This record gives sequence, structure tokens and C-alpha cells, in this order.
Amino acid sequence: MNKLDSLISKLHELQIDGYFLPRNNMFITEDIHPAENQIMHISGFTGSAGTLLIMKEGLSRLFVDGRYELQAPKETDPDKIEVICTAHTALLEWLSQNLSNGFRMGYNPLTISIADLSRMQSKLPQIKFIAIENFITTSQNHVAGRVFEHALEFSGISREEKIAHISEFLTKHQKDAWLFCAADSVSWLLNLRSKCLPDTPILRAYAYVSSTGEVSVFGANLELNEKQYPTLKFYPINALPDFLKKHKKEQIYIDEISTPSAISTICRKHKITLYHHSDICGEYKALKNPIELQGIRKAHERDAVALIKFLHWLDKNFDNQTELDIVEKLHEFRAQGDNYFSESFETIAAYASNGAIVHYQPAPSTNKILKSGSLLLLDSGAQYYDGTTDITRTIALGTPTQEMIDIATYVLKGHINLSRAIFPNKTTGQHLDSLARFPLWQKGLDYKHGTGHGVGCFLNVHEGPLGISTSYSSYPLQSGMITSIEPGYYKEDRFGIRIENLAEISTCGQSNMLCFIPLTLVPFDKKLINPALLNPEEIAWINTYHERVYQTISPLLDSKDQSWLKTACKKI
Amino acid sequence: MNKLDSLISKLHELQIDGYFLPRNNMFITEDIHPAENQIMHISGFTGSAGTLLIMKEGLSRLFVDGRYELQAPKETDPDKIEVICTAHTALLEWLSQNLSNGFRMGYNPLTISIADLSRMQSKLPQIKFIAIENFITTSQNHVAGRVFEHALEFSGISREEKIAHISEFLTKHQKDAWLFCAADSVSWLLNLRSKCLPDTPILRAYAYVSSTGEVSVFGANLELNEKQYPTLKFYPINALPDFLKKHKKEQIYIDEISTPSAISTICRKHKITLYHHSDICGEYKALKNPIELQGIRKAHERDAVALIKFLHWLDKNFDNQTELDIVEKLHEFRAQGDNYFSESFETIAAYASNGAIVHYQPAPSTNKILKSGSLLLLDSGAQYYDGTTDITRTIALGTPTQEMIDIATYVLKGHINLSRAIFPNKTTGQHLDSLARFPLWQKGLDYKHGTGHGVGCFLNVHEGPLGISTSYSSYPLQSGMITSIEPGYYKEDRFGIRIENLAEISTCGQSNMLCFIPLTLVPFDKKLINPALLNPEEIAWINTYHERVYQTISPLLDSKDQSWLKTACKKI
Repeated sequence: MNKLDSLISKLHELQIDGYFLPRNNMFITEDIHPAENQIMHISGFTGSAGTLLIMKEGLSRLFVDGRYELQAPKETDPDKIEVICTAHTALLEWLSQNLSNGFRMGYNPLTISIADLSRMQSKLPQIKFIAIENFITTSQNHVAGRVFEHALEFSGISREEKIAHISEFLTKHQKDAWLFCAADSVSWLLNLRSKCLPDTPILRAYAYVSSTGEVSVFGANLELNEKQYPTLKFYPINALPDFLKKHKKEQIYIDEISTPSAISTICRKHKITLYHHSDICGEYKALKNPIELQGIRKAHERDAVALIKFLHWLDKNFDNQTELDIVEKLHEFRAQGDNYFSESFETIAAYASNGAIVHYQPAPSTNKILKSGSLLLLDSGAQYYDGTTDITRTIALGTPTQEMIDIATYVLKGHINLSRAIFPNKTTGQHLDSLARFPLWQKGLDYKHGTGHGVGCFLNVHEGPLGISTSYSSYPLQSGMITSIEPGYYKEDRFGIRIENLAEISTCGQSNMLCFIPLTLVPFDKKLINPALLNPEEIAWINTYHERVYQTISPLLDSKDQSWLKTACKKI
Repeated sequence: MNKLDSLISKLHELQIDGYFLPRNNMFITEDIHPAENQIMHISGFTGSAGTLLIMKEGLSRLFVDGRYELQAPKETDPDKIEVICTAHTALLEWLSQNLSNGFRMGYNPLTISIADLSRMQSKLPQIKFIAIENFITTSQNHVAGRVFEHALEFSGISREEKIAHISEFLTKHQKDAWLFCAADSVSWLLNLRSKCLPDTPILRAYAYVSSTGEVSVFGANLELNEKQYPTLKFYPINALPDFLKKHKKEQIYIDEISTPSAISTICRKHKITLYHHSDICGEYKALKNPIELQGIRKAHERDAVALIKFLHWLDKNFDNQTELDIVEKLHEFRAQGDNYFSESFETIAAYASNGAIVHYQPAPSTNKILKSGSLLLLDSGAQYYDGTTDITRTIALGTPTQEMIDIATYVLKGHINLSRAIFPNKTTGQHLDSLARFPLWQKGLDYKHGTGHGVGCFLNVHEGPLGISTSYSSYPLQSGMITSIEPGYYKEDRFGIRIENLAEISTCGQSNMLCFIPLTLVPFDKKLINPALLNPEEIAWINTYHERVYQTISPLLDSKDQSWLKTACKKI
């Protein structure tokens, strides 16, 4: 009996009509390790997002977004699983329309946040939600990870100082403690990192910080020497319920988006009052401190050196290389940089039609050979101890068509329109998004992804709470934050274009107004710029940017790379 | 004993620590009649928005937004009421920080929506909310209003057809009924209007529509002849609880934003299951039908005739007129138009520094005399049976300063940047807002109000669910909707500038893209345009618009007004 069938029998035993399985573990706002991917183990679906509804009767349902509409049915057994694309029917809408009154829905309260459960309960009053912690017995297993200190020379603020901020806040608001469940917040707060995940050095743990400044860390399979951290108390994650029992009747803050609903149940049992408050570590973490900013800028210079060396090499050697060769070659250049730790995500090297698949990653089965006449979309980044990078350049191999040049120019116009924007302090990202799309929209073009995401400092390359997009981006932008700016255009079966810089948000002289300062210092491919489509302000912006790239990076290069960069940065 | 004191004694009797009084009645999403303004009667505060917290012990608190920060303390007794400005401390934040654990908070469940109560309960777990319906005994009294039919020649779709849509939707989704509590939705659905409020011809009633198409109307002090409407059953509003009792165990849709929390309590008692769904009448209503669109366009032509006659008159006669004279004169011109019913809101005629007060309305105490050398900001509109108008023009009296001209030009650039935008179907208003601000932001300028609001058809001049702003505007824009476009700039103690057109949203040729077509056809004051600050696309847009104004409106004018308009619409 396969895994799905055995879970269905278990549904019968438990008299449950369905089991709701999101693609995450108890670190709800983080990515999972492939070994922890229950949906993949049960259904065969390998995508990076999805929800499985295991049904007692009839077909189980796999909900995927538009990116996986074609892939998911190929990977799953159509006799057992129906794939529902949420671009056509939203998950809650499908559940509302298809589940009968009184439907008994099992779920793991560790893997669903308080906010999500409350939204589902409110939107689906006909469904009875039943918490079952050990339905899938492996769901609480986590890969192990060696823990290490994130040194003060990189973090800029000691863990003691950060903890003191939290305890002051708690004292001021008369609360007993804060339970942080977002792993990257905990990593930031404690200046600790680990090697659990391949590209993201987060520590996977919860932290309970009391108003008196005591910190109890609940870790999942952490490998560490506790004596190194005498101010912290470490517990295995399953000690949390008993720990909370000892804190009866306390008044504590939690963030409902990153906190599992199980916590709410335990707290209710012990008469602990939960106050919902957006994760304050997430907010502090987004505002980079001066030491972090200095490190991030330096990391970007090193990253630019690697990219420029690579682009020079590519210029001479692209013919007959494969996408996977490109991934490897770029890695070689990056790994030579000081403070290099790892890539910050799997490199996207997408040639020609592969570039039109927004979340493409090269694999042996899809690996294209590079030739003249089309575009290479290259989206990559690195984790340096002093900063995280993320850059996309689209490169014409040989001579591009006029259509490619013009569309790439509209994408660049979008990139510039947002990059040169001046805007009031605390404008939200959602509010700015249209500035990057406007030049594309005027030509009837658009892209189906966000325009910008926050970036951690030796943490997640996609970091909340800020973002610039049509949706997940209502957080107010402030000086000291880092965001990507990455408009694109994707022509199906032909090519993809994306132009991405990271930028620092900074005050801009005029009172209370902000602007972007590019952190990424790598030239745009001039073969893909049609100056006739640019206005004088846009041309000035490009020339100023290229001048800055040349002035900053050329001293770090050998003479051959310098001379390549000089040509690449020439005025238009 | 004054009203506040007697309510405080009542708090003692009831053992309630505070009473939460929002500025609305049971028609939560509508404006109230001045006679229904409990906050004014109790506290003296006359502003158009605010919340009063009557406290058993210590000072009561009046929460007002930034507009009323100075006015509210002048109107209220500082020995009894402390004014809290929500621009500095948000209402829920203040309550969370200042009310003790176990605070007993009384509220009228008829005046707080399900959504608001649920948000307060979730954010303020330490407070016990206690429903008291008759704490303020007059809170359920409503002004009376004569009801009249909104004729099919204007509404375009019969009430039978609209009701059939709703009942089909209910049948499809296997629900028994929909209880609509938003008065403008009910007015739209039933093609009924009333004279309850001075500028908004809504019918104030709830409607219960069953899946079989039966409609029960629960009205507040309606004056009507029931025999005229044989397909509708009318009840007094207080018959609703007994009515719901007869519908035990039904499954019904409600919109949690416009439905009082009292409804939720009654339904729970009778085991009626409530499904939350955004108000479907609100959505239909926003998409104007072809007859409505035709009427709205014609109403705007009539409104343009009135405005142009007025502007011509003003040009010759402004000297020594007062703001209140202007209001009266404009009314005279408008009232001559066919299908004129009333103003659509109190005219804002704000001269010089009065123009910098965003929500200024002239009153005898503030009434300025118009003279050469400053600006008149004139924001006004009318209810015609076939459509509702809303227009703002800023007019230079005599010779404006260069600063006035340049800033007015930046405002106009913002108006044009949004007006000429092409954007994908279902883009949200929040997403587009920055396009109107971008040209101002680049000069360090901004305005502290929304950029656009939906407009009803012989209904509310501010109509949801769409809007273009930084906040209340996440609703997707679609072809057939009407929005205002109204960027501005306000220089304290000097002048105010706002340029507002209404526009129809329409498909724009390119697949799935939308654009704005101006409905308002009145020239911009060319004395306030600096062509040197405009790019060629902006100049072309202005010239095309003025050409259209002249071609459309001049045939409707006498020769003197025609000749004034010809000059006003000359190419720049």
C-alpha cells in the first residue's frame, strides 16, 4: 500500500473526511528542506508551492498555482489525485463550493498559522476543523543543522542589545513575553545561523523572550555547544507545551501570521492571553543597521566583480555552453570572493524559450545549449557573511532581433522609472509597483510576478515584511531597507527578459521623501537598449549608473576585465 | 444634568466601564442625517468623522482624524472630554494601551459591523465587549423620507431582472437567501430612491432576498404606498428579528462590512449559518449598464454647460463676490439643467488660504471675499436623475504667481499621467494611485487625500467598492466603472489646488487592457499651465481633451458662451 492509500485508511479509522496538507513544516514562513517535502513524498508533485487535500472518499485534490498547472498532472496519479489550478478557482472558493455541510477536515495545527486557520474558519463556516498533530508521523522531523555565531562585525548589533530592545518594548506595553516563531526573526535576534538549508543560513527555532530579557530557544535538531551561548536556554521543540504550562496566565505577544495555531490552543489551555502584533524582529531586521549596510555594499562590490568577470568570459565563450555550464561557471567566479558562504538560491540560467518560464531552473532534462541569436536570462545571487545579493541580467548572445531590443528597452524603462522615483517616507511597496509597469503597460505588455522583494543580511534572499508588488507589499518603505527592483517580460516559447538590481532605500534630501540607491553594480547589456525609445531623463539615469559602476568596480579588476567593463559602461 | 453626564450615570447602573460610540446608525456604510448625529448631540463635536468613548471613570475620549485635530478641542468640554488624534495614535492602539484588563466595553450592535467587531475582539483580547441596544435611546430613530421609483429609463435594468440575478446566484451556490444591509445596494437592487438625506437620494432599508426571488424590505421611517410595489414586502426595521426567527437554520449570505453585528447574534440564536461574501449588489452597481452610461455621459454634458456658463460669468464678475455667492450662483446654473434633482454634496468654494483646508466648506464665519491675485478651488457636483457628477477646477483670479502656475502644472501632470494610463483589466485602484502622485513626488510635493473614488448613478457621489488611493482601494477596476481622478496640492495659509475629472473606465483596444475616458468636459484654466514643464505627450493630451470639450459642449451654448469656450479650449 502506498503512502497516500495508507493515509486514506487512517482517515477512515479517525472518521475524518479530508486532511489538509500545506507545503510547510512548523516554520510556517520559511522554505522547507527537500527531505521534509511531505506533498512530494505522498503525491509525487515536486513544485515549490501547493496544498494537498487528502480525501477519504473520491479523488484527493492538489491545489497549485498557474506555474504548475501543466507540471502537476504529469507528476501525480490521475486515478487518485485531481489537480486544481488556483489561478482559475481559489483554494477557499473551491473548498466552499465543493465540501459538504459538516465536512470533517483534519489538519496539523503546527503547520497552519493562527491567521490562516482563523480565515478558513470564518470563510468556511460549514466545515469542522479537527486538529491532528501526528497524522503524518514524519511531519515534525527536521533536517539537522550545525549552528554558528553570526559575528558582530557582520551583524552590527549584539544579541544582548537586540534582546534588550524587545524586553523594553514588552515592559512598556505591560506584556510578560514575546514568542517568536519566524525562524529568520529568531536568527536575526540571536545572531545565530545554521546550515540546515542549502541556500539560506537560518537557524530553525522559536524564541520565547521574557520582559526581563530571559531567552528560551526551542530548536529543531540543532547541533550546537550550549556552553558557547550562556545567556540562552536551549530546549528541544517538543518541550514547548510544558514550558508554556509553567507560564500560566501570562500576557504574551505573538505574530498570528508566523505562529502555528497549535500555540494558540496550548495558550488557551493555560489561560495565557495572546496579543496579536506584527513580528517586531521582522520590522527591526528589515531596517538594516549601518554596519550591515556597509557590509551589504561591500558584498555587492564583490558580487559585481564576479558577475563582470563572468560576463566578460561569457562574451567570448558562450557558444555551445549549456545552461548548467553557466551555473557552474558563475559559481566558480563567485566562490573566489571574500566572505563567500553559498549561493542565495539556485541560479536561473535560462536560454531562449526557457527564459519565458518565470521560475525555470536548469536541469539535465531541460538543459539548453547556448547559441547566437537569442537571450540568456541569468538570475542569481550569493550569501556572503556580510550581505546577501540577488541580480538578474538579460544578455543578448550574438545579434538580437529588433523586437527583443525594443521589449528589453521597455523593461529597462520600467526599471528606471521605479529606480529614479522619489516618494514619501512610509509609502507602501504595493503603491509603487505600477511605476515599474507603466512603460510596459502603455505598450500593452506586463509581467505576472512582483516587482521587488526585501532581502535579508546573510539571511533569506526573499525577506519580508516589505515588497513591491500588486499584493504582498503593504508594508511601509523606510530608509535603510533593501529591495529588489525587477520588472520583466516573458514571450512564451521565445524568450524571457528581466532586469534586476537590489537597491538601498535612503532619504533623498527633500524632507520626508525617499529614493532608491542601486546596490547592484553591473552594467546592462547595451545590445538590448534602443536609445530612440528613451527620454533624456532615462538616458541620463543609465549613463550615471554605468559611470558609477565603472568608477567603483574597475579598480577591483585586472586590466582585461577593466577594458571590457569600460566598453560596457560607455555613454549612450 | 447634560446628556454626557446622564449617560455616565447609566454606565454606573449597568456596571459598564465605557461605551463605544461610532458616528453612524444602523446603515453603517452610509452617511447620517445631521439630526441623527449622536456624537454631536452628546459632545458638541460637529466633524464628519469620529468616535466617542464615554468613560465611567475619568475623561471620556473623542477620537478624530488629522482634519479635526484643532477643531474638536474647541467644540468639546476639556473637563469632560479628551480629544485623541488618530493621526498620532490609532484608535485600536490607544484602546489596547490604555484600557485595563477586563475592561467592560458597551456598544450598540446595530452600529458596529460584524467585521469591525471581530477585528476589535481579535486585537483587544483583554476587553469584554457587551452589546447594549438601547443605551442611547434615540440611536435607532431615523429621519423620515418619501420613497420614489427610479425609472427604468434611468436605471436601465428592472428590479425584477436584478432580483433574478441574485436568486440565480443563490441557487447556484446553494444558499437560501442574501441579507443586504448596505442602503445604496438596496436602493440599486430595488430601483427605489428616497429623500431622507439632503444630497444623496438613497433608500434607507435592508433587503432580504430569497433564492426563490421573494424580497422583504426592512425600512427605517419610509413614506411610501406599498401598493405601488406589489412584488415587494415592506416591514418596519424592528420586525427583522421575528422575521429571521421564521427562517431558522437557513444558510444565508451577508457582507460582513455593511452588516451590523446584531444580525450575527440573532442568526446564531436561530441557527442560521452566515456565509461572508462581499456585497454582490455593490459589485453589480459599480459596473454601470449601457443605459446608465448613456445617462451619465448626458448628465456630464449638462453639468459642463452649467460649469462653463458659470466660469464665463466668474471671469467677468469675480471681484467682491464671496465664497457663498459662488455656491449660490453655481447652483442657479446647475438647477436649470434637465433632470436636475439636487447637489451631490455641499459645494466647496474655497478662496486663497481656505483652499488649503482640504474639506473646507464655506460658512458665514469663514466666508472670504474674492479678489485678484489668488486661486479659487471649486469642488462641486449634482444629482441628475440620469447620473451623478463631481468636478473640481482651480481658477486663477487675476494674475497668479509663478509658484502657483508651476505647482498647478505639476498637479495637472499628475492628473494627465493617470488619465492617460493604460493598465491591465482588474488592476486595483491602490495600485494605480502613485501614477497621479509621481510628477508631484519628483518635486517633493504630495497630497494627503485619495486620488479617486467610485461614483454612483443617481446614488452616492462617493461609491464603493472601487477607489484609487493608498488605502481603501484594493477593488479591481473594470470596464464600465466610473472613478474620479483628483490629485491636488495644498499650501498651508496660502492656496489649494485640485484638478478633478470623473472618468469612465473602458477597454482600450489592446487585449485585456483598460483606459480612462474623461466624462467631465470642462476646460482647465490655462493661466495655471506652464507649457515649459510639460512633455509632448502631456501637451497632446491637453489639446485633445480641450478639442473634445469644445466639439461636444459648444453646440449646447449661446454664442457668447461659445466664444468664451473657444478661447478657453485653444491649443497650447
